[in-house]
Amino acid sequence: MKYSQLFGKTRKTVPADAVSVNHELLLKAGFVDQASSGVFSWLPLGLRVLTKIEQVIREELTGIGSHEVAMPTLISKSYWEKTKRWDVDILYKTKSQTGKEYGLGFSHEEIVAPLAGKYIRSYKDLPLSIFQIQRKFRDELRAKSGVLRGREFGMKDMYSFHKDIDDFHSYYELVKQIYLKIFSKIGLSQIKITEASGGVFTKKHSHEFNVLTQAGETDLLYCSTCEFAQNLDITTRKEGNACPACQKGKLMVGKAIEVGNIFDIGTKYAEDFGVSFIDKDGGKKIPHMGCYGIGTTRLVGTIVEIYHDEKGIVWPEEIAPYRVHLISLPGADVHAKSVYKELQEKGIEVLWDDREDASAGVKFADADLIGIPWRLVVSQKTGDKIEMKRRNEKEVEMISIEKAMKELSITN
Amino acid sequence: MKYSQLFGKTRKTVPADAVSVNHELLLKAGFVDQASSGVFSWLPLGLRVLTKIEQVIREELTGIGSHEVAMPTLISKSYWEKTKRWDVDILYKTKSQTGKEYGLGFSHEEIVAPLAGKYIRSYKDLPLSIFQIQRKFRDELRAKSGVLRGREFGMKDMYSFHKDIDDFHSYYELVKQIYLKIFSKIGLSQIKITEASGGVFTKKHSHEFNVLTQAGETDLLYCSTCEFAQNLDITTRKEGNACPACQKGKLMVGKAIEVGNIFDIGTKYAEDFGVSFIDKDGGKKIPHMGCYGIGTTRLVGTIVEIYHDEKGIVWPEEIAPYRVHLISLPGADVHAKSVYKELQEKGIEVLWDDREDASAGVKFADADLIGIPWRLVVSQKTGDKIEMKRRNEKEVEMISIEKAMKELSITN
Repeated sequence: MKYSQLFGKTRKTVPADAVSVNHELLLKAGFVDQASSGVFSWLPLGLRVLTKIEQVIREELTGIGSHEVAMPTLISKSYWEKTKRWDVDILYKTKSQTGKEYGLGFSHEEIVAPLAGKYIRSYKDLPLSIFQIQRKFRDELRAKSGVLRGREFGMKDMYSFHKDIDDFHSYYELVKQIYLKIFSKIGLSQIKITEASGGVFTKKHSHEFNVLTQAGETDLLYCSTCEFAQNLDITTRKEGNACPACQKGKLMVGKAIEVGNIFDIGTKYAEDFGVSFIDKDGGKKIPHMGCYGIGTTRLVGTIVEIYHDEKGIVWPEEIAPYRVHLISLPGADVHAKSVYKELQEKGIEVLWDDREDASAGVKFADADLIGIPWRLVVSQKTGDKIEMKRRNEKEVEMISIEKAMKELSITN
Repeated sequence: MKYSQLFGKTRKTVPADAVSVNHELLLKAGFVDQASSGVFSWLPLGLRVLTKIEQVIREELTGIGSHEVAMPTLISKSYWEKTKRWDVDILYKTKSQTGKEYGLGFSHEEIVAPLAGKYIRSYKDLPLSIFQIQRKFRDELRAKSGVLRGREFGMKDMYSFHKDIDDFHSYYELVKQIYLKIFSKIGLSQIKITEASGGVFTKKHSHEFNVLTQAGETDLLYCSTCEFAQNLDITTRKEGNACPACQKGKLMVGKAIEVGNIFDIGTKYAEDFGVSFIDKDGGKKIPHMGCYGIGTTRLVGTIVEIYHDEKGIVWPEEIAPYRVHLISLPGADVHAKSVYKELQEKGIEVLWDDREDASAGVKFADADLIGIPWRLVVSQKTGDKIEMKRRNEKEVEMISIEKAMKELSITN
């Protein structure tokens, strides 16, 4: 993609409410646009990142046998009444010309339970796992922190059905591992699996997947040494206490962003919709359900909070909008064009800043703001060589095109 | 995918309101599930078809330089008031806890015009074309005809901005050609480009892309010989008249499904949001806009209306959920497994009906209902050969695995 053609260029000014790092940087670098408070348009650069994250999630969940579907946003009032969630305060409601009422899905137990119920007959149909990646809607009193807490946002939600609690537990542990793999693949390897409240609809505990950062709004108590972590809301333990798990570490308190969560939702929703199956022994039973979320748009914001410096975003390679940011300085257009072509032919995603009316300084600053992992510069000065630099390093290499291509191909 | 594992199997009974062919077949074959009237869940088979259609559209529009974005569903009342569309009857509305009102996007001029306005400064920024593929919402008085007219549906909407009307016209003609290419690629080559009304917000005419079928609800007047076609709503001509375009053919009347439309929306929305640019001569001007839609979920239904027989759906190869439907009969499981593996290794998408408790008759009937282009059968009878049949042909071939693989690879 040529930068001159790109829709969504960098900008200097942002709305006054863009006070968090991800909010400011994603707007300035042209990844999103704010339509209203907590409601965003995803511009081409942002959509590329989001799509790559979605693809990683899709592959991993398909890999453990979950089935991708697309459930509706308009969920009839009658479904919400069955689960007693019609009056949940975050539910946006709408009424048709003919008086029919819907709630906009903030979660899809109301759809998935009766849907699965149409296909579950016998224990042989279990376990069953279904997921989707789509928009969710939450009537937040206060949208804040950019794409971290929006009123409309992207989410992957998965639901599983099991013949008994043992089968559920083993799947729950499997999902924990797959979640860590997903987060690690997109650059988030320091995840705290945190014991937390199960929410309004279950007395059971759940687990959150938290990323430690001052930009977060979840309070964690975690061990300095081992993996122990609890949401402050559910614990009576205190900072400085000895870790109850390893006995060695000390408990610390910190802010975190919750990027995923997994719930044991038991048989509530299956019961609400009369979902049952015939077990091996001929008896009629209620399937045990799990629910598993990942905030896809929130992940984009989280990654920006974690990976940035004073100049802009520093995208992890796996989900960067492009791998190479090619900059051509005056007099090097022909050279740049051949490098651009070669990168494209090799399947290496490249954004070429081909602007004729932008100074070198502006181009370098924009490259740092946008945060693509590799910067290549061609100018009259570079001759038949090329200047190569990683976004997260200071060192600049002056190397041959061949060597640059080789290095980029290896890491592709 | 093994059929035994597939979520969304065939079913015998469907809701009473499923009277149209696409509605009945998509439900019976397990492509969609109906959550409420005009509101569907897309099951794995249906989502695969929909995703393939979306991918064809995405590639073609990207190919003509349009930029993919994702605009929000929640559109603030203030935007709709600027365009005087807040009181449009098909607009679903919702109000937040704090009293903030939104309309759910049925179209996105309200978002795209101010968004583009943030980036358009000079004639050099034009033309600009932006598209998205996402859910739309319409408060239809009566949802009908399955996925042909839903309350929540998939749509590709594209918007273009031009420095003058000439530039707009040439783009409009380009989109006409690209639309024909898209429809042809997904199996719809008999498209009537139809002159129609421009709708409520323009006096200009628009063009619809119509597929002739009794299942449609658009009335067309079209020439028996040439490409002339008009929506009956805008014409005073009559059936049997001589064609005003070619003078040779006779005008005929027929029902059609509108799968796409393109509009000249002039400067209305740009004016509403104060979008302007500095032209070459230094003068301030308003960009001329076009709007271009394709109903993605409606296309799935249209294809079923066009391509089916008394036994079920007959998917065109390009968008079929899988290319091969492999059936194993008793005693041939080992053989089937090796064929399944070989197809997967060759990258040929395959659904393997591996059920042990289903009869040959049930498997054949389900294969015809689901409509995958190629059926392969292995049984004790077939020995080391395989029975191969196209869904749309009667002839069955008994051929070697090698020959079958070769034929499938050629057409892959």
